[in-house]
Amino acid sequence: MANSKYGYVKNFELPDPVLPDTFMLFRLDGHSFHRFTDVHGFEKPNDVRALELMDHAARSVMEEYPDIVLAFGESDEYSFLLKRSTSLYNRRESKIVTTLTSLFTSCYVLYWPKYFPDKPLQYPPSFDGRIVPYPAERHIRDYFAWRQADTHINNLYNTTFWALVQQGGQTTTEAHATLRGTFSKDKHEILYSRFKINYNQLDARYRKGSILVREEEPEVPEAQSEARSEGQVRAPEGPTTETMTVSTDATPSSVVLTEPAQPKEKKNKKASKKAKPATLIVLLHCDIIKDDFWNERPTLLAH
Amino acid sequence: MANSKYGYVKNFELPDPVLPDTFMLFRLDGHSFHRFTDVHGFEKPNDVRALELMDHAARSVMEEYPDIVLAFGESDEYSFLLKRSTSLYNRRESKIVTTLTSLFTSCYVLYWPKYFPDKPLQYPPSFDGRIVPYPAERHIRDYFAWRQADTHINNLYNTTFWALVQQGGQTTTEAHATLRGTFSKDKHEILYSRFKINYNQLDARYRKGSILVREEEPEVPEAQSEARSEGQVRAPEGPTTETMTVSTDATPSSVVLTEPAQPKEKKNKKASKKAKPATLIVLLHCDIIKDDFWNERPTLLAH
Amino acid sequence: MANSKYGYVKNFELPDPVLPDTFMLFRLDGHSFHRFTDVHGFEKPNDVRALELMDHAARSVMEEYPDIVLAFGESDEYSFLLKRSTSLYNRRESKIVTTLTSLFTSCYVLYWPKYFPDKPLQYPPSFDGRIVPYPAERHIRDYFAWRQADTHINNLYNTTFWALVQQGGQTTTEAHATLRGTFSKDKHEILYSRFKINYNQLDARYRKGSILVREEEPEVPEAQSEARSEGQVRAPEGPTTETMTVSTDATPSSVVLTEPAQPKEKKNKKASKKAKPATLIVLLHCDIIKDDFWNERPTLLAH
Amino acid sequence: MANSKYGYVKNFELPDPVLPDTFMLFRLDGHSFHRFTDVHGFEKPNDVRALELMDHAARSVMEEYPDIVLAFGESDEYSFLLKRSTSLYNRRESKIVTTLTSLFTSCYVLYWPKYFPDKPLQYPPSFDGRIVPYPAERHIRDYFAWRQADTHINNLYNTTFWALVQQGGQTTTEAHATLRGTFSKDKHEILYSRFKINYNQLDARYRKGSILVREEEPEVPEAQSEARSEGQVRAPEGPTTETMTVSTDATPSSVVLTEPAQPKEKKNKKASKKAKPATLIVLLHCDIIKDDFWNERPTLLAH
Repeated sequence: MANSKYGYVKNFELPDPVLPDTFMLFRLDGHSFHRFTDVHGFEKPNDVRALELMDHAARSVMEEYPDIVLAFGESDEYSFLLKRSTSLYNRRESKIVTTLTSLFTSCYVLYWPKYFPDKPLQYPPSFDGRIVPYPAERHIRDYFAWRQADTHINNLYNTTFWALVQQGGQTTTEAHATLRGTFSKDKHEILYSRFKINYNQLDARYRKGSILVREEEPEVPEAQSEARSEGQVRAPEGPTTETMTVSTDATPSSVVLTEPAQPKEKKNKKASKKAKPATLIVLLHCDIIKDDFWNERPTLLAH
Repeated sequence: MANSKYGYVKNFELPDPVLPDTFMLFRLDGHSFHRFTDVHGFEKPNDVRALELMDHAARSVMEEYPDIVLAFGESDEYSFLLKRSTSLYNRRESKIVTTLTSLFTSCYVLYWPKYFPDKPLQYPPSFDGRIVPYPAERHIRDYFAWRQADTHINNLYNTTFWALVQQGGQTTTEAHATLRGTFSKDKHEILYSRFKINYNQLDARYRKGSILVREEEPEVPEAQSEARSEGQVRAPEGPTTETMTVSTDATPSSVVLTEPAQPKEKKNKKASKKAKPATLIVLLHCDIIKDDFWNERPTLLAH
Repeated sequence: MANSKYGYVKNFELPDPVLPDTFMLFRLDGHSFHRFTDVHGFEKPNDVRALELMDHAARSVMEEYPDIVLAFGESDEYSFLLKRSTSLYNRRESKIVTTLTSLFTSCYVLYWPKYFPDKPLQYPPSFDGRIVPYPAERHIRDYFAWRQADTHINNLYNTTFWALVQQGGQTTTEAHATLRGTFSKDKHEILYSRFKINYNQLDARYRKGSILVREEEPEVPEAQSEARSEGQVRAPEGPTTETMTVSTDATPSSVVLTEPAQPKEKKNKKASKKAKPATLIVLLHCDIIKDDFWNERPTLLAH
Repeated sequence: MANSKYGYVKNFELPDPVLPDTFMLFRLDGHSFHRFTDVHGFEKPNDVRALELMDHAARSVMEEYPDIVLAFGESDEYSFLLKRSTSLYNRRESKIVTTLTSLFTSCYVLYWPKYFPDKPLQYPPSFDGRIVPYPAERHIRDYFAWRQADTHINNLYNTTFWALVQQGGQTTTEAHATLRGTFSKDKHEILYSRFKINYNQLDARYRKGSILVREEEPEVPEAQSEARSEGQVRAPEGPTTETMTVSTDATPSSVVLTEPAQPKEKKNKKASKKAKPATLIVLLHCDIIKDDFWNERPTLLAH
């Protein structure tokens, strides 16, 4: 066979398993998104269309990969937690990190027109990804606290910065100068006294970021379940998954069931085959630094 | 600062540099493309639209990353060679492999409608990627020989298989049975005696795969250069790059200059800044197993 | 400087940190010890001199490296547990695994004449080593259970095998044949009915292996402490450490304080400088599969 | 079986193959040898006994591992080159680096009394080791040039430093001050003008370090071969190896055959079995920066 002579080159592909029984944290970031947001005219300090597109792509990744139990997004980055027992692709790091990055990218480009109907993509956006293994639950708690604290710091700065520019008439250079050396309370004060903005009443999405968490699905009547399956774009291969949006925190909450992941026929077939509990993916904008979120989900980090 | 308490979680991101002064071979493969080609009705044994889309995406990746000097594509896979001296992203493996996989995926989805105008994507396609380091030039020669030999074997099998099915009226099961245990010459004989197909006269694209190679650009008059810049979608960040398609081998060749990578203004500015020779990316469908291809490009593996 | 031209070769030394906050398990095994035990006439099934030499070398390694909190030895292998918080050599894997293997080897050769006074080494023995990172406490529990279960299985087999050969007059081939397919209870029965050996009354060292565990030192009067320091061979660099032997289990126990690790002067100086509690290393031959051993040492895996 | 329940812990041992077809450079260094040389009263600037002991240990390692084709030693470090095609221990890094470090350490301690008959070891010395993969021949050339340039720089400094102290009556602080900012020619001048020392006529061992190179053995008459086998301490497992010392460079050369590695009986048996050419290990103190050494051994880096 022709390949036998050259096939030895496969031996240079070295194994790259992630250490067993560690949590895998997969994070991706927009590549050169400063330029990308400029070219595509993103609104400042936050563009809700862009954030919803990120959430949509992240949700699609979670629907496809049932071993992802939690995700957190802010700005142009998203973090995904794979449960520690996952044997996805035999825990091969390159395989996992590239496949997930690729699927997210694919969704981002494919669903772009839904969120930016009047603004076609000027060039192909890309993301970089990495996997970080964490040995213990408290690392995971601290990881997500790290990202949400980062969200808070960035958003408070950006909100104040753009208020100074857009409403206060400062140049960007002046606005940076105004903010140099200020603490959180100073920025709150600037927002409130100059612009009548109560930071804590801004949309929780901006202040808390987006949390996507997989929850077991409550029982739903057949008819309702069926009704929801309109507009379905694809059937993921994992166990049945539905999605739901919950806005929480200081701002008014609303619960909207969106984009059920599977047509009823397939779902029933799979459910009978796999006998796994159906799950649904819930979108939240709540605190994940304190204990409440975790105490309410005691099995989230259990497996 | 809020982050100081949690920032330690960054320490779990371990360094992953690729060994210095080795060639990096980046290969990506379509994820579950058997299903993808079914759902999207790809023609058998080869769908020229799909192959041209792969070439387009690969070319865009090469335009963006000047350290990629050679690429080879067949079916739903593409291999890219980064020169051994590259310091792209400080040779961090995850960063390189995810960014390249992401950009390729992004191009694939973004340019899909150009090649399948009547067939919208049913769901987001994805790819997996890997980087393999090779110490020596002969490994690179053998790597590309390995892929092209694979192309030949697969294409001869598939061509005969689908002739038996589409023209010979066999079921797929019967066709597999017919081919079991046959050698190359047997398949050539089946194609010729039953279906009047001379395998060696089929499109070189199918028999040899796609080679994208970066070559130094010949001097071109300003006017012509300018004329070519229409339809430009984006300006890559690397040195100036243009692209060209060359069909070679037994089938008639044609040279078509396509998709110049940069508007003239930026190009001139960059050229004067960097003083690097402009390069162009040429698409070939020629033999890369024998010495000729390599002898004609003595500097290809030199850096 | 002459080195600047060649110094780039250092860049090929890639970083190899062990994942933070994981337990490191360092295990070493005798290299080709089947031949080594033959050449040096080790007694079968167990040579107490050889086992005590292994314990001595292991103890010396623990005295030198305070971050090793537990060790387990059987036959020609020894396992060492480094606490999960250790920053020894910045957790560089090669540095740790080679230094520990080297020190153990050095001790083995240096202390050999003490245990085999009439039998000079015929050639240099060597060991191989590895480090395995474990994320969770239960992995450590199971690791040590794995090794002690292995000790039991091997020792029961070997004890019965050599009884058949040495007392039963069988050839080694016959003895292997006799034991083929037998269960534990069969071997117990053979030992008792044919050779009047009650396996459970054999020396716990052989049945349970050797456990070296670091414990906080009880307060001792100065005079006694001083008296123990005779015969001291070296002063380790870590915090003060003393050693103690405890035979436990079914066989009669005795407590012998041996080889205090430091002369009093240095110890006092260091103690005042570091203000760490003095520890002592205790040798046990007890069960470490059940919970008792671990429950009695609640802080053993805490750091 | 008792192990089945715990055996999963073996899965945490991750594979660690060295990239195929790269040269492996194994280097070891004395651990805390500043203190070790003080405690054991090594002569300054060079202790020939200590250097010969290093050479002896290195030679023993080469005798045991035929895939080591070259070694270079200076002070308390030694570098070993394994040929690029080696499949030693399936190229598992931990296995190779620990076994080689262990064997070297074992030899160092075992042969110590031969070189320091009046000075027993005060405590067990240890070494750390590492393996560095190199893709190309020129990296190997540059690696050895790097080490020999280092030898030169260090030895010139130390020789001048200790002349100032031992013969010039300076304190060590004064001697360091005298040498601060000096170039090579200044040190040569100090040595010659103040102490009548012609640096270039010092023992090549000190100026060039020790090179151990494996060469094919010339045919020798049986009787001579047999006569040389007295005093043999061990029979290595690889192909037949003998050793030879060659002092080269500016100082007078002498060739002394020492320590043939195998008794004649075993050697003949092996030779007939393996039919590999016998090799001998030659000790040199010559230049390995320039081309001559390498041109004379065209096959040294070939495999």
